[in-house]
Amino acid sequence: MRQTDLPAPAHSAHRVQFYETDAAGLVHFSWFFRYMEEAEHALWRQAGLSIHAPDGEFGFPRVSASFDYHSALRFEQEFDVHLRVASLSKKTIRYTCLLSDGDRKIATGTIVVACVRRRGPEPMAAVEIPADIRTRLQPPDAEG
Amino acid sequence: MRQTDLPAPAHSAHRVQFYETDAAGLVHFSWFFRYMEEAEHALWRQAGLSIHAPDGEFGFPRVSASFDYHSALRFEQEFDVHLRVASLSKKTIRYTCLLSDGDRKIATGTIVVACVRRRGPEPMAAVEIPADIRTRLQPPDAEG
Amino acid sequence: MRQTDLPAPAHSAHRVQFYETDAAGLVHFSWFFRYMEEAEHALWRQAGLSIHAPDGEFGFPRVSASFDYHSALRFEQEFDVHLRVASLSKKTIRYTCLLSDGDRKIATGTIVVACVRRRGPEPMAAVEIPADIRTRLQPPDAEG
Amino acid sequence: MRQTDLPAPAHSAHRVQFYETDAAGLVHFSWFFRYMEEAEHALWRQAGLSIHAPDGEFGFPRVSASFDYHSALRFEQEFDVHLRVASLSKKTIRYTCLLSDGDRKIATGTIVVACVRRRGPEPMAAVEIPADIRTRLQPPDAEG
Repeated sequence: MRQTDLPAPAHSAHRVQFYETDAAGLVHFSWFFRYMEEAEHALWRQAGLSIHAPDGEFGFPRVSASFDYHSALRFEQEFDVHLRVASLSKKTIRYTCLLSDGDRKIATGTIVVACVRRRGPEPMAAVEIPADIRTRLQPPDAEG
Repeated sequence: MRQTDLPAPAHSAHRVQFYETDAAGLVHFSWFFRYMEEAEHALWRQAGLSIHAPDGEFGFPRVSASFDYHSALRFEQEFDVHLRVASLSKKTIRYTCLLSDGDRKIATGTIVVACVRRRGPEPMAAVEIPADIRTRLQPPDAEG
Repeated sequence: MRQTDLPAPAHSAHRVQFYETDAAGLVHFSWFFRYMEEAEHALWRQAGLSIHAPDGEFGFPRVSASFDYHSALRFEQEFDVHLRVASLSKKTIRYTCLLSDGDRKIATGTIVVACVRRRGPEPMAAVEIPADIRTRLQPPDAEG
Repeated sequence: MRQTDLPAPAHSAHRVQFYETDAAGLVHFSWFFRYMEEAEHALWRQAGLSIHAPDGEFGFPRVSASFDYHSALRFEQEFDVHLRVASLSKKTIRYTCLLSDGDRKIATGTIVVACVRRRGPEPMAAVEIPADIRTRLQPPDAEG
């Protein structure tokens, strides 16, 4: 699968809220993971999906998550979140994320999520991503 | 029902975490509601109950919540949370809460929660608090 | 001062994020206070102000906050936050807030904030709200 | 510097709070980063330090953070957080973290933090970790 076959990245604009800052006057580092997830869920909606539909059969728990922080974010600052599907395996999705303010790189992150059955046995085990979800997150011509 | 019949209040000690502070250098006011709820759940555990057991039939959504703020909390400060059942009606529980640091009053709060069926019809409707929960949150001699 | 002299309320649209939900499948009640504050800060920006400018002399800590919850919010649900200045005293501002989804009332809240000097003596003491802030949050003809 | 010269890891016990869970019924993945930071600050206190003292000259912003998730955490579950200084460079500290429940591994994480002057020029630049902080986070015999 070529990178260029993957869906266009999701862009979203965000303004730093006061409750996202900490006593150092900066956005607390844990918030970047929430910004990344917010963009993931927006990407799913753009693809006509909900990652956690009320009666959905599948869930997508996080397998790993990371961020590299390049510059700080402060109260009321505006920034962009760019997220894309970097790769799709049978049972997992890997996203990469860039937070930026114009040309300034703020942070780069990655999350890997696995597909599981929401009411499946414990401990949770990864299962194949359903075809309709796979197709929507990846253009059909990438299948060949 | 006399106040003195209600269970002894729950006391818990807490230290301000960095992620609880905001850019003003103080604990963000939304956290006080979480401290209050944390004490509520500790009170239930003391009473041998879980407010959200995995297969529990009942849930206790919040009907109202309020706080009056008297002094600020800062990073790493230690404080106490005192919570008590202020009154029990057929379908609701009202708690009062005091946050203090020794003799210094930090904040006083109130929450009212209603009993609902977790898998009941929408919109949620308050139902009677089950007798075993009522008994545990209130000593038997308060029944008479 | 007549209610009608106060600035038009701020309206903002919000979509429930996954990190705002809890294990009951609903938005955690502490989040409503954050939505209310988010609307307050948007109202200040509409009035050409920042409630926490980098070198600002004044801060606006919360004196009290409350919410009455009427119906639940779930993941990805959209709702509106309406906030208005309900009254301005010499040293405090009182806001009222309505969360709604079309005609459905979700919650109603109140916050009172006091004006303090950010680098003033401890404990913090309320001071008069500076004239330029007061004027911007309240039209000039309300002064008479 | 040998690993064994580094201070004993910090252990802390934690119980999952309701506000840490999400609509999937699990602790939201962003919380693991807060648990890790909470343990870092406890390690500093054990070493007689505060990572953000009121008039402290230095700050320790995060350079990178990551977690691998092995099993889920649910409401009221108890778990342990083990954190250790994995390595100290001139300007940065790298910690590794394990969350476990008895023998069950829940998650493993890493954070790298850099030392900066809190009231230094923008953008922030890493500076040498002061000797007294370095000494306390690392036993004297590791210096040789």
